[in-house]
Amino acid sequence: MVIQSVQWSPDQGAVRIIDQRLLPTEYIERDLVTLDEVCEAIRTLAVRGAPAIGICGAMGLCVALSNSKTPTRETLLQRAREIAGVIAGTRPTAVNLAWAVHRVLRRAESTGGDADTILGAMRDEATAILEEDRAMCRRIGEAGAQLIREGACVLTHCNAGALATGGIGTALAPVYIAAGEGRNVCVLATETRPLLQGSRLTAWELTRAGIPVTVITDGAAASRMRAGGVDLCIVGADRVVANGDVANKVGTYGLAVLAHHHGIPFYVAMPSSTIDPSLASGADIAIEERDPSEVSTLGSRRVTAEHAAVGNAAFDVTPADLVTAFITDQGIVFPPFKFE
Amino acid sequence: MVIQSVQWSPDQGAVRIIDQRLLPTEYIERDLVTLDEVCEAIRTLAVRGAPAIGICGAMGLCVALSNSKTPTRETLLQRAREIAGVIAGTRPTAVNLAWAVHRVLRRAESTGGDADTILGAMRDEATAILEEDRAMCRRIGEAGAQLIREGACVLTHCNAGALATGGIGTALAPVYIAAGEGRNVCVLATETRPLLQGSRLTAWELTRAGIPVTVITDGAAASRMRAGGVDLCIVGADRVVANGDVANKVGTYGLAVLAHHHGIPFYVAMPSSTIDPSLASGADIAIEERDPSEVSTLGSRRVTAEHAAVGNAAFDVTPADLVTAFITDQGIVFPPFKFE
Repeated sequence: MVIQSVQWSPDQGAVRIIDQRLLPTEYIERDLVTLDEVCEAIRTLAVRGAPAIGICGAMGLCVALSNSKTPTRETLLQRAREIAGVIAGTRPTAVNLAWAVHRVLRRAESTGGDADTILGAMRDEATAILEEDRAMCRRIGEAGAQLIREGACVLTHCNAGALATGGIGTALAPVYIAAGEGRNVCVLATETRPLLQGSRLTAWELTRAGIPVTVITDGAAASRMRAGGVDLCIVGADRVVANGDVANKVGTYGLAVLAHHHGIPFYVAMPSSTIDPSLASGADIAIEERDPSEVSTLGSRRVTAEHAAVGNAAFDVTPADLVTAFITDQGIVFPPFKFE
Repeated sequence: MVIQSVQWSPDQGAVRIIDQRLLPTEYIERDLVTLDEVCEAIRTLAVRGAPAIGICGAMGLCVALSNSKTPTRETLLQRAREIAGVIAGTRPTAVNLAWAVHRVLRRAESTGGDADTILGAMRDEATAILEEDRAMCRRIGEAGAQLIREGACVLTHCNAGALATGGIGTALAPVYIAAGEGRNVCVLATETRPLLQGSRLTAWELTRAGIPVTVITDGAAASRMRAGGVDLCIVGADRVVANGDVANKVGTYGLAVLAHHHGIPFYVAMPSSTIDPSLASGADIAIEERDPSEVSTLGSRRVTAEHAAVGNAAFDVTPADLVTAFITDQGIVFPPFKFE
């Protein structure tokens, strides 16, 4: 079943990604070599999902740097800092991206020797981030699978699956593990406007894995819950701050309120790299406002009346008190939440 | 400002509609002459909105019948019953459609004289339905406008405006009246997947009228409410039953839960023809399941993975206890609700 959303090209000279803009109709892998290619892939969501863009950013820093003319250690480190800043700035909400590129940067700064040695150490660090993410996904899955009983229906939002990580996903990891353990599990996937990651990506990777999935519009989640069709919700996270508030794809907060109203458990699955203890609460999280055309056009067709304003906040914040528990690589974390 | 979504053609030989499938990019009026044209227009949502399809169905019955070869009173009435049944069956959830065609049918049955006389009486009845709807819209607007203070932001879902009725709408009528009285009002329009009536239609008719409107995805409503950007919600209804439960466009129920959670008033605006006292509660309402392709394709492009199931219930039911009040042509109705 396993797809690999981000990886090295065989010679480590490029970041190889599955171009998620083309799914589910076309499956195309692309090799990113230049800084522009890396940034454009992240910005246009060719690669997406907080852990996956972290890995892509870390590898992309190495690839872009190795193409720079930087004969001395000092010019190399200077250029590395510039590239890291550019990559980290492509998407502001997910903490993993800045975390990953800065981890690779710190490794460079702490490595002696010539440019080749430093670049080798940076590549090792990026590889370690990928491998750790893969292991964390599995541990998240093992922790969360115990919450999924035989025959359960799991509602999820957006895509926090294999496509969003280096491994088997975050929110979908418990589903993969429970299914792998032989339990019948079904998934209700909200399509997730405006970019339809639920419809295009979550449904794609689950059907590839043979797990039954039903796609519904975001607005249909409430009546499904009321009708008893949802046993639990599991979503991913782009950033979890000290008090347990969660930034995730826009629509997550509404689902959390609905789950609360219907007495349905609402879980957030995430690796440790998603925790940002530097922010006290969700009010401090920068929310990315994306291009209005994502909402106002479908393909090349304009769907929103011409003089109407369009809001396109890409994320929202779910307050910690609506989260039943966090499913992490360190196990399940119940309230009261305090992340450090 | 006034657009007329449904009306007679000048010689009453056709039903003239604005083809809402093409908005907002193209404004085209179409004349419906045959039974097939009338049914196809209703089924494909070229004309839509509970009151508007009632008017279209009533006029369509007259138009289709006048094209039938029915020399005797008995064959005319027989054919009228057949046509009424076909039209009423095109969309099951809105009560107005069946109500309107049966009202015209009853007028036919109670009229003496020859075929021309009967047809004339039927046309008068259909015209009366249009005129009454127009008057009801205005009274709904006048009743609801008092709920909208200077500077208020009204969240609405789908389109329950002029395009959905014979007049100035139901949910949007209070907005038009308040704006006409000189108050600054803004509207937050949920785009309303899958068919984007909020983005395509509500935004179109409000911008034409010079009323500021912002389109957001359905999933973004919750965070707007939490941020204090919504003063009140007003939605339309496709059917309101005896206990006050409301069938309306899918997504309405979720918005009602969210409004309740945030302490925001949630109003349902509707003409008397939307009340169906024959059903005791919302559990008895037939919910139309529409073609999955409305969700799984955009234009000609498939967006949902191939082997995924797709749910496309077009409506949901909001229980009466989440409705702050009904805004009707008879005034504002507060709980406890009991419609007869």
